[in-house]
Amino acid sequence: MASSLHDLDTPAALVDTVRMQRNIDRMQARMDALGVRFRPHVKTTKCLPVAQAQIAAGARGITVSTLKEAERFFAEGVRDILYAVGMAPARLPQALALRRQGCDLKLITDSVAGAQAIAEFGRAQGEVFEVWIEIDVDGHRSGIPPEGAALLDVGRALVEGGMHLGGVMAHAGSSYEHDTPEALRRIAEQERAGTVRAAERLRAAGLPCAVVSVGSTPTALAAEALGGVTEVRAGVYVFFDLVMHNVGVCGTDDIALSVLTTVIGHQEEKGWAIVDAGWMAMSRDRGTQKQRRDFGFGQVCDVSGQPLPGFLLSGANQEHGIVSREDGAPCPDIAQRFPVGTRLRVLPNHACATGAQHPHYLAIQPEGSVLSWPRFQGW
Amino acid sequence: MASSLHDLDTPAALVDTVRMQRNIDRMQARMDALGVRFRPHVKTTKCLPVAQAQIAAGARGITVSTLKEAERFFAEGVRDILYAVGMAPARLPQALALRRQGCDLKLITDSVAGAQAIAEFGRAQGEVFEVWIEIDVDGHRSGIPPEGAALLDVGRALVEGGMHLGGVMAHAGSSYEHDTPEALRRIAEQERAGTVRAAERLRAAGLPCAVVSVGSTPTALAAEALGGVTEVRAGVYVFFDLVMHNVGVCGTDDIALSVLTTVIGHQEEKGWAIVDAGWMAMSRDRGTQKQRRDFGFGQVCDVSGQPLPGFLLSGANQEHGIVSREDGAPCPDIAQRFPVGTRLRVLPNHACATGAQHPHYLAIQPEGSVLSWPRFQGW
Repeated sequence: MASSLHDLDTPAALVDTVRMQRNIDRMQARMDALGVRFRPHVKTTKCLPVAQAQIAAGARGITVSTLKEAERFFAEGVRDILYAVGMAPARLPQALALRRQGCDLKLITDSVAGAQAIAEFGRAQGEVFEVWIEIDVDGHRSGIPPEGAALLDVGRALVEGGMHLGGVMAHAGSSYEHDTPEALRRIAEQERAGTVRAAERLRAAGLPCAVVSVGSTPTALAAEALGGVTEVRAGVYVFFDLVMHNVGVCGTDDIALSVLTTVIGHQEEKGWAIVDAGWMAMSRDRGTQKQRRDFGFGQVCDVSGQPLPGFLLSGANQEHGIVSREDGAPCPDIAQRFPVGTRLRVLPNHACATGAQHPHYLAIQPEGSVLSWPRFQGW
Repeated sequence: MASSLHDLDTPAALVDTVRMQRNIDRMQARMDALGVRFRPHVKTTKCLPVAQAQIAAGARGITVSTLKEAERFFAEGVRDILYAVGMAPARLPQALALRRQGCDLKLITDSVAGAQAIAEFGRAQGEVFEVWIEIDVDGHRSGIPPEGAALLDVGRALVEGGMHLGGVMAHAGSSYEHDTPEALRRIAEQERAGTVRAAERLRAAGLPCAVVSVGSTPTALAAEALGGVTEVRAGVYVFFDLVMHNVGVCGTDDIALSVLTTVIGHQEEKGWAIVDAGWMAMSRDRGTQKQRRDFGFGQVCDVSGQPLPGFLLSGANQEHGIVSREDGAPCPDIAQRFPVGTRLRVLPNHACATGAQHPHYLAIQPEGSVLSWPRFQGW
């Protein structure tokens, strides 16, 4: 393995497939034990071999963040797809085309106006869209609060408009802001209870609500019981990253994505090695900046992936990164330690953002060979 | 124009070509008046029609940040190319292939080890590489200080190694940290004087130094005289952005890049409109965070591009953005002001980073039609 990593062009996004498979198996085993279906979010990777590994392990259906993801994965044979971003009316023809081709596409909405737009378009086209209502369990972003008056109005607008009200879904995005097991268990229970409560309110009003879908990587890994929930969604768990390390749901040795880089120069007086992984390769994501440990633009590792304690990617321009000591201490032997041409790997703040900078992953297979796994960009 | 902007898929990266051409003409006229060649940095756009407009206006040669950029632009007929990132020895075969095809590719280095690696490879392959020495004028990143002892050693290693020492180049990246005309003029003069001084030292030692190349968008626009300089480089000036606005070298009405987005929901109690431009469309660049005015993830404008004072993209998840009042004040009429389906435009923090998130720009032509201009990704 080490020899091929010395030959690859840099910068490159490496996937450690042994770690990836372990992450997939860990999550699926948890979901199986909790008695829920698992619907991974493919926005993290936008990469077919990764989704195939998730499905092979037991995932049922996928979650997407764009209709382009839905189109690409449906073309590869994935039928059961949740589009988990509030439906923009102008995109309804694109969703219709997918359903007409046989895609079991589910939409979401959180407003009467949104529900009416879907119903109106569906009726005009003779299409019964399956729609889930987005629930806001933590004030993080979108959705209707579990006790919100609008919940029943939206449900009725869908059903009376002739659409299929398929269920409710929530994403406790605020879980990323916590870093203790207790806090994560609490937010997981809040996500569960709020979403189940919304489902109960719909059912009590005589409305259907078959699916109760929740999830984020931290809550999926923290939940102790999922009574009333039918499925869980999570995305970044497949690779993990330094933000998830700080949240407390993985170790650095679980992080399956790293950026391979080459030393191209030094500023010895400053203790800097200059590498060819800048923000274009790492992304501008500084998600650990406000967490308990700030990893700069990433944790520096040797070429085998072993972290080099105390060395961070402390700065980044477009195609230049600065490797230096975390504590800002001088490092008079920086050029001897990392001569020009040295290969290093950098663990990212946020796997979704770092992956998006690359047209493909280089997937290191268990026996050491390297496969190119394409990922796609855009909308 | 307005009607076609209502039909485009969102999010999308829009280029106002009238503003772009004005930015190109302004910079070229400055360079002509200062009596220097202009070599635009195409890393900002990675887009052929933009580079063609720069060359048509008078640019001579281009600057690139990756060899992929060199390959793509050379394939389209651009011969004179400066690869302005310190040469990694492992990439020398790629550079050789370009030169063998007739590309007038220039490399840079800032160390004896780097110079020796180039010379050794060049001699082994029978190729005389043109190499420029990178000068550090402001402690920003890479390069040899103008008075650094290594300067002459690197020059001799190149010449004695049989390579063509073509000149010196510097990039005063610290100019981005200033925001007054006086400070920008000072850093521009520092960049000029340091680079010219390095050239003089090389020449005094009997070494050739035909080219003296400097530049960054702020210093290029601030320099009052460029005695001794032969060419200037700049990249982001072609689109400008909110960081450059804060630096003080453009107005918001010069910013030629914006992201077109659609309102998909609201959180009325919080005064939020949710839009479909998240960080995937804007990038995670928060370059204005430490500047005199923090624009969040971007300045919100109406669909025609007119800024809506007081409204920012205050938060961003992968495919969700939050539009809210800049001052955090409530906005009880947010849903009436921006109903679901409303089209908005968002000015970016950093045009290089935002463009990189998109596979193409949608270029609005002067008469209102929209062309798709592809850009490329990766290394």
